[in-house]
Amino acid sequence: MALALTLGRRGQGMTWPNPSVGCVIVREGRVVGRGWTQPGGRPHAETEALAQAGAAARGATAYVSLEPCAHQGKTPPCAQALIDSGVARVVAAVEDSDARVAGQGFAMLRAAGVTVETGVLDQQAMRDHAGFFLRTEQGRPLVTLKLASSFDGRIATATGQSKWITGPQARRAVHAMRARHDAVMVGAGTARADDPSLTVRDLGVAQQPVRIVVSRHLDLPLMSQLARSAAEHPVWLCHGPGADSERMQAWEGLGAKLIPCAVDGSQLDAGDLLQQLGGAGLTRVFCEGGSALAASLLAEDLVDEFVGFGAGLAIGAEGLPAIGAMGLDRLEDAPLFTLSETRQIGADILHRWTRALK
Amino acid sequence: MALALTLGRRGQGMTWPNPSVGCVIVREGRVVGRGWTQPGGRPHAETEALAQAGAAARGATAYVSLEPCAHQGKTPPCAQALIDSGVARVVAAVEDSDARVAGQGFAMLRAAGVTVETGVLDQQAMRDHAGFFLRTEQGRPLVTLKLASSFDGRIATATGQSKWITGPQARRAVHAMRARHDAVMVGAGTARADDPSLTVRDLGVAQQPVRIVVSRHLDLPLMSQLARSAAEHPVWLCHGPGADSERMQAWEGLGAKLIPCAVDGSQLDAGDLLQQLGGAGLTRVFCEGGSALAASLLAEDLVDEFVGFGAGLAIGAEGLPAIGAMGLDRLEDAPLFTLSETRQIGADILHRWTRALK
Repeated sequence: MALALTLGRRGQGMTWPNPSVGCVIVREGRVVGRGWTQPGGRPHAETEALAQAGAAARGATAYVSLEPCAHQGKTPPCAQALIDSGVARVVAAVEDSDARVAGQGFAMLRAAGVTVETGVLDQQAMRDHAGFFLRTEQGRPLVTLKLASSFDGRIATATGQSKWITGPQARRAVHAMRARHDAVMVGAGTARADDPSLTVRDLGVAQQPVRIVVSRHLDLPLMSQLARSAAEHPVWLCHGPGADSERMQAWEGLGAKLIPCAVDGSQLDAGDLLQQLGGAGLTRVFCEGGSALAASLLAEDLVDEFVGFGAGLAIGAEGLPAIGAMGLDRLEDAPLFTLSETRQIGADILHRWTRALK
Repeated sequence: MALALTLGRRGQGMTWPNPSVGCVIVREGRVVGRGWTQPGGRPHAETEALAQAGAAARGATAYVSLEPCAHQGKTPPCAQALIDSGVARVVAAVEDSDARVAGQGFAMLRAAGVTVETGVLDQQAMRDHAGFFLRTEQGRPLVTLKLASSFDGRIATATGQSKWITGPQARRAVHAMRARHDAVMVGAGTARADDPSLTVRDLGVAQQPVRIVVSRHLDLPLMSQLARSAAEHPVWLCHGPGADSERMQAWEGLGAKLIPCAVDGSQLDAGDLLQQLGGAGLTRVFCEGGSALAASLLAEDLVDEFVGFGAGLAIGAEGLPAIGAMGLDRLEDAPLFTLSETRQIGADILHRWTRALK
């Protein structure tokens, strides 16, 4: 099962709106088939593994990181494929929460005489599929917030100098993290200040994540890396009701997808923003700031994972804060996180946190 | 020598203005004497170790973490004591930079026919004696700046809620760090807001560090933990020229020591402050904020070690920053630090940095 989970993680960032599943088929102690959800979401992991196993699947055990699907979608149901292959036993990490599956995959297998077990390494599987489950259950993707700052939490000096506060190893780790998400998201201020391309570089990925810019007024330069590359890799722009129509047309002409969102106060409503992104199919979003977008996600308790990079310098209180105003009065209302890792990365520190259960 | 260094660190925080030295006497592969500088700065490490060794010192090797002293001070010179004991060889980690010693200890030993070696584990010894060397060479103590904050670098909410952002393990580590410094220092704002006692608790220390409050106007409450305990453990107040004379008398009456310092702009001059503290004998100062004092030390590049504790919560930009305004315009002017350690401590992270050589 650990192998099935590892295989499943290979597809993260490339299978949305489908979950990224891993499957291992074992017969008489030998692995006869391995598979994971392919880029674009199909073929499914089970199909891949069964194709490898061929006739060796008969009487074998299939380990899958998620309940096999039971409905006819763009691919035939995996539960049926497992039955047809003659597999004797299916061990699944967790049940699928998608209403079209939710227990029906297991039921179909059992009705055909296949032994079914579940709950093996389920905690790890829940983490791996957290984005898929969040989208199915709450309609929104998982959000990882990444911030790179000085050790006093500043991302730029008062005059706006900001690029490369952290070192090359930290930046490389960021590219690997981008690759494991469906989309990379920044606020309009960051897009204007840094002119980022938001692509995954030097890792040979099969599919670039969607690039998302959150900009209420679509006040974004058309002479930019994002504009130049919008036809090549997807760019989605989340904007408010009052966005300028000429700008909307210009960006659509460049190939960007426009996503209208509700407004809350002076900013886009973070909850609605994520519902729109979930509706568009995303299961895992990697947000890289800026401070206003980070603050609005945190203030609504919509950050599931937090990744901090801290560099060995102090900038002081005039500097731009990594996290903007959150409107927090009482310490008890602060969003809480549980540490999952801290380590040195190049000359910087990396610290990862997961939303705490209150 | 590693043992001598370890023994030497036992006295850190308790031997000022003297260095905290360790000494191990080895004869025919057996340790016959161990010693370290005693609280108050005497007896010296060599005296202690020689007393243990007795006649066994004859023909032995003495490992000392610092060059033995050569001048008649409150104790007779250690170089002479080593000669008198019949020690055949002295291995010292580093030469003393005190003008009264600087090479003369070695010269005295050599003149008496004792073999002298130096430069063994000298990097570690330089770190251990850094406070003593800084005071001898630059007239100021070593400064360790410790800040405990949310992971976005905030020490309190906008309404001032601040106590115990980090957990009990982090607080316990802070007490252990206080114990290894000669003094604990805070700004007036922190003294007013937190009413701290600044003592080392639950560690059974032989001697409490000096408690220092930096307050230009001496605007500090007399109904406070510091005021109540000033007769018991030392309290030093660093103030500007315009401090109220009634307040000065009141604090002196309570047993506090008043240290007048020069003013730079609206704050006490950080450089002069440290010169005054060095002049009063301190070699190692542990500064626990607040944000204004931290910023003024950092802005003058007077922070030698930085210790950060980060808790798993976000407070947002309205919160009080750990480091105040530093007047920094260019990223190139930011004080730089090299990571020495990062690890989990309780539910929080601990990260330690040392001033980088530019």
